Amino acid sequence: MKTLIKNAILLDMVGETPNIRKTDILVNDKIIEKIESKIDENADEVIDAKEMIVMPGLVNTHTHLAMSIFRGYKDDRKLMDWLENAIFPVEDKLRPADIYWNSLLSCIELIKSGTTTFNDMYFRMDKTIEAVEKSGMRGVISWCITDDSIKDKPEMTRKYFNKYNYKDSKIKVYVSAHAPYSCNPETLKLCVDLAKELNTGIHIHLSETMDEEKTIRERYEQSATEYLNDVELFDVPVVLAHGIYISDSDLEIIKNIKGGISHNPISNCKLSSGICNVTKLRENGINVGIGTDGIGSTTTLDMFEEMKMAAYLQKVNTMEPTSINAYQILKMATIEGAKVLGLENEIGTIEVGKKADIILIDNNKTHLYPENDICANLVYSANGADVDTVIIDGKVVMRDRKILGIDEDEVKEKVDKIVKRLL
Amino acid sequence: MKTLIKNAILLDMVGETPNIRKTDILVNDKIIEKIESKIDENADEVIDAKEMIVMPGLVNTHTHLAMSIFRGYKDDRKLMDWLENAIFPVEDKLRPADIYWNSLLSCIELIKSGTTTFNDMYFRMDKTIEAVEKSGMRGVISWCITDDSIKDKPEMTRKYFNKYNYKDSKIKVYVSAHAPYSCNPETLKLCVDLAKELNTGIHIHLSETMDEEKTIRERYEQSATEYLNDVELFDVPVVLAHGIYISDSDLEIIKNIKGGISHNPISNCKLSSGICNVTKLRENGINVGIGTDGIGSTTTLDMFEEMKMAAYLQKVNTMEPTSINAYQILKMATIEGAKVLGLENEIGTIEVGKKADIILIDNNKTHLYPENDICANLVYSANGADVDTVIIDGKVVMRDRKILGIDEDEVKEKVDKIVKRLL
Repeated sequence: MKTLIKNAILLDMVGETPNIRKTDILVNDKIIEKIESKIDENADEVIDAKEMIVMPGLVNTHTHLAMSIFRGYKDDRKLMDWLENAIFPVEDKLRPADIYWNSLLSCIELIKSGTTTFNDMYFRMDKTIEAVEKSGMRGVISWCITDDSIKDKPEMTRKYFNKYNYKDSKIKVYVSAHAPYSCNPETLKLCVDLAKELNTGIHIHLSETMDEEKTIRERYEQSATEYLNDVELFDVPVVLAHGIYISDSDLEIIKNIKGGISHNPISNCKLSSGICNVTKLRENGINVGIGTDGIGSTTTLDMFEEMKMAAYLQKVNTMEPTSINAYQILKMATIEGAKVLGLENEIGTIEVGKKADIILIDNNKTHLYPENDICANLVYSANGADVDTVIIDGKVVMRDRKILGIDEDEVKEKVDKIVKRLL
Repeated sequence: MKTLIKNAILLDMVGETPNIRKTDILVNDKIIEKIESKIDENADEVIDAKEMIVMPGLVNTHTHLAMSIFRGYKDDRKLMDWLENAIFPVEDKLRPADIYWNSLLSCIELIKSGTTTFNDMYFRMDKTIEAVEKSGMRGVISWCITDDSIKDKPEMTRKYFNKYNYKDSKIKVYVSAHAPYSCNPETLKLCVDLAKELNTGIHIHLSETMDEEKTIRERYEQSATEYLNDVELFDVPVVLAHGIYISDSDLEIIKNIKGGISHNPISNCKLSSGICNVTKLRENGINVGIGTDGIGSTTTLDMFEEMKMAAYLQKVNTMEPTSINAYQILKMATIEGAKVLGLENEIGTIEVGKKADIILIDNNKTHLYPENDICANLVYSANGADVDTVIIDGKVVMRDRKILGIDEDEVKEKVDKIVKRLL
C-alpha cells in the first residue's frame, strides 16, 4: 500500500529551528519512503495537500482514555471533593465494556484533534487496548498499580507486554506505579523489578500538588523525587507526569533520567495544582512532553489547547516572553514527547525511514491568515478542528475530518447508556 | 423580517445560575419578540436549531481590529523590542484603505468564532467603521488619543459620535485616552471634558505592566488609578483594559466606577504582563468583561480561547478551583461584558425585548460529548469553530459557518497585498 501526499507545506520538526518547505511525501506501507519536491510514482492513494500544513502527529504523553464519560462532571470543585464524591464512586462501578467504549470515544477525540500517539495509565487496560486497536492509534499502555490495588496487574502487564512485544507493534506496554503517595517502597520495588524484568519503562505521577510533597516529606523525610530515587525507580526509563514541585536538588536527580516529564498545563491550572517550570527543566536538558491528563480534569483532549496553555503559562510564570517560543512548543508536542516515551526513533518527525504518523492541517482558514509565522499560527491560533487528515502507521484514519472505520454515532449511543447508568 | 429559531437548547445567561431549556425563539426585525416552547407563526426564515446550543453573542471588551496583519509577526519577543522594532514602524505606514481591509478580516474572524460585539481603540476609525458596517457587527469605537497624537481626534470623535448617536445604532462612539503613561493630565482632562460634552464613556489601558505603575509613581507620586481619579476620569463611564496591578487602595476607587474592567488573559500571558486578579475584582462588585486585545499580541480573536484562559488563570493564580466556574466565565463573556460597555439593556442575554444578538453552537460534536454540564463543555471544550450560525441585530450574518455578504477570498487577497507591501 503506497500513499502519495502531493504539494504539502511540510513542517518536518527535525531541526533546532523550523524547516518549512513545499514538497511531496511518499508513504510505503508503514514507513515514510521519500520526501522530494516532485514525486512521480504510482500510489494506491494520492492526497492533494495543497493549502495543507503537513507535520508529525501530536504525542500526548499523559492521559486516562477511559475517563471520557467524566467530561464536565461535577466540575469546578476542589480536587479531593471532586475525586471522593464524583470520580471514585463511579470508577468503582465501571464494567469492562464501559472501559472499551469510553476509550474509543477518547480515541475519536484524539484523532480529530491531530494526536496520533498517547500514553495511558488506568485499569482494565485490556479493554482500552481493544479500543485503541479498533481506532488505529499508537499508544503506550500501563496497568495502574497502587498499594491497595496490586492484584493481577503485574501479571496482566507481563501478559500484554509479551503479547505486544514484537517488531512494528503500535502498542507498547509500560509498568505503572500510580504515585509516590499511593505506593509504598515495597510496591515501588515490585514495579521497578517488573520493569527491569521486561526491559520496559515506568509511568508515574510525580509532584502534582504541594500536599503530595508534604505527605511524602512527613512519611519519608525526603522529597518525592528523592523517594523514587532511593527505590531505584530511575534505573529504568520513566514518564513523570506533572513534575510541578521539583526543587533544585531534585533537578540534579531528574537531569539524569531516561525518558522525561509530561507537562499537563490545563489539568494543573484547572485543579489549581500549580505551574510546572518547564523552562528550567528544558534548560537542564530534561525531555519535556505535553499531556492532556484525563477528560475528567481537563474537559478536552485537544493537544492544540494544551500547546497554547503551555506557552502562555511559561511566559507569564517566568515574566519573560522569550522563555519559550512557538517552535519549541511544537517540538514538545511532537519529537520531545516521542523522546519522553522512548519512541524518538520511530515517530515525532517527518523523516525518511520513520513511521508515517502524519497530520494535515487545513491552512485555508481566516484565523490562520496572514501567514507571517506558520509555527505561531499553529500554536496560538489553530485548534483541533483545523486538522483535516490523519495518518497513523501509514494508514489513513481520518480524511476530510471523517473518522474511517468507526461508527461515531454508535460510540456515542453506547457511551450515552453508560452515562445514564452511572452519572 | 421575522426569523424563527426552532428546537433550540437555550442558555439565556439571565440568572445567577444556568437556565437551560428546549424552546423556540421568534425574532422580529432587530428584537427578540417571543421565547416559548412552541411558536407557530409565519416567519420569513426558519432556522432548525436541533442539536444547537443557542446563547447570546459574545462580547469582546477590548481589541484593535486593524492589527490583524500582525498575526504572528515577529512573535515571542520582549514587549518593547516587539513594539519598537516590529509594530510601530509598520503602523506608521498603514494607509486608510489598509485599516478598512485589516478591520474587515478581524470582523470575519470575530463572527466565525461567535463574537457579535467588540470594543475597539485605534486610529483612522472612520475606516474601521466602514468595515464594521459591511460586516453587520455591533461595536464601540474610539480614536486613540495620546500626548503626541491629539491632532484631529477630538474632532473626529465628536463628528462620528453625532453621526451614530441615534436610536438603535449598532455603532457607539467612545472617547479613547490611550493610557496613563502616554497621556499627561492636560490630555486626560481634554478626554474627560469631551466625554462629558458628548455624554459618552472613555476607553483606556490601565495597569497593564509593572513598569507602567513604576513610571506613573515616579512621575506623579501616585498609582495609575489614583492619577486617573485625580483628573476626574471616573466621573464618566469607563472601560479599563487589563487592570493587572491594582492595589487594595486602588480597588476602593475602582469599586465605584461606571463601566468596568476588560480582562485580556491571553495577551497578558503572551506579553508576560502578569495575571489580573479577576476573582477579587468580582468579589468587590466590579464588572469584569473579557477581551482579546489585538491579534498582534494574542494571535487569535477567538473568545472561546479567552474564556478557557480566564478560567484556568484564576484557578491556578488563586490556587482555588472554586474561585470561578464555567457559568461565571460565560457571564463575563456576555452580560458582564455588555455591562462594561454600558450595553446591558440592549444585549448580553436572550430575553424578550432585547436586541437579537444570538449565536448557535453545533452541539453534535464528539468533543462536546457527553453533556454532563453544558456550561463546562462550552468553556473548557468548545472553540470558535463550533459556532454554526450568528445573528446580529436580528440579521443572520453567518449560516452553516458561511459568512454572508462578504467575499472572504477578496478580503484575504487585499490583506495579502498589504502584508507584502509592509511586512
